[in-house]
Amino acid sequence: MDVLAQVTFDDQGLVPAIAQDNNTGEVLMFAWMNKQSLALTLEKQQAVYYSRSRKKLWFKGEESGHKQIIKDLYIDCDGDVILLKVEQVGGIACHTGRASCFFQKIDNGHWSITADVIKNPKEIYG
Amino acid sequence: MDVLAQVTFDDQGLVPAIAQDNNTGEVLMFAWMNKQSLALTLEKQQAVYYSRSRKKLWFKGEESGHKQIIKDLYIDCDGDVILLKVEQVGGIACHTGRASCFFQKIDNGHWSITADVIKNPKEIYG
Repeated sequence: MDVLAQVTFDDQGLVPAIAQDNNTGEVLMFAWMNKQSLALTLEKQQAVYYSRSRKKLWFKGEESGHKQIIKDLYIDCDGDVILLKVEQVGGIACHTGRASCFFQKIDNGHWSITADVIKNPKEIYG
Repeated sequence: MDVLAQVTFDDQGLVPAIAQDNNTGEVLMFAWMNKQSLALTLEKQQAVYYSRSRKKLWFKGEESGHKQIIKDLYIDCDGDVILLKVEQVGGIACHTGRASCFFQKIDNGHWSITADVIKNPKEIYG
């Protein structure tokens, strides 16, 4: 695809991808994409990442149902970071059952949990 | 510092860092931090990154004046990605003179520029 030519992948063939909720602006998660997963993301208009630990394509929401519908796809000034504006199906992006993976912040010198579990992961993943 | 113990740095000693405007929710930029830059970020309450190309600490805004004041610092569920909620001094995060580094999005199969230059980079960097 034409737009892929402008994306710079690193020496492992990967590009960082940030998913942001298109409605709330909340940053939902951070993951990686390879060229194939980015092409599939564009083709399906749903987020497809590349799992570095499992070394394979990660069709976000395939198991949980918590897919990410692409509303807009941005690239940064250097062409080496992707920002996805998504509609988060089920309102849950995190495997812990929370809306966002960023639910711990520093509060008085300690990590503090800032968001509740919406759905028990056992119910999500069976 | 105590909170640093919970951060997982990669095999190059780095952790991805996303900066988000604390007021608008706009994702401003993506960069990397090493342990020292994260410690300095916490100490100064201003974003300090690690430049992989220059192989040294990058005190954001040192030259441009466009510092990032830390409002909150989040970590993701896996402890290996940082999200900074910042007050962007000057309203410009990008070296192109735009508010955000993410100013190009796909529109009808082409990359399209979505944001104006606020200040000419020549004026910013001299």
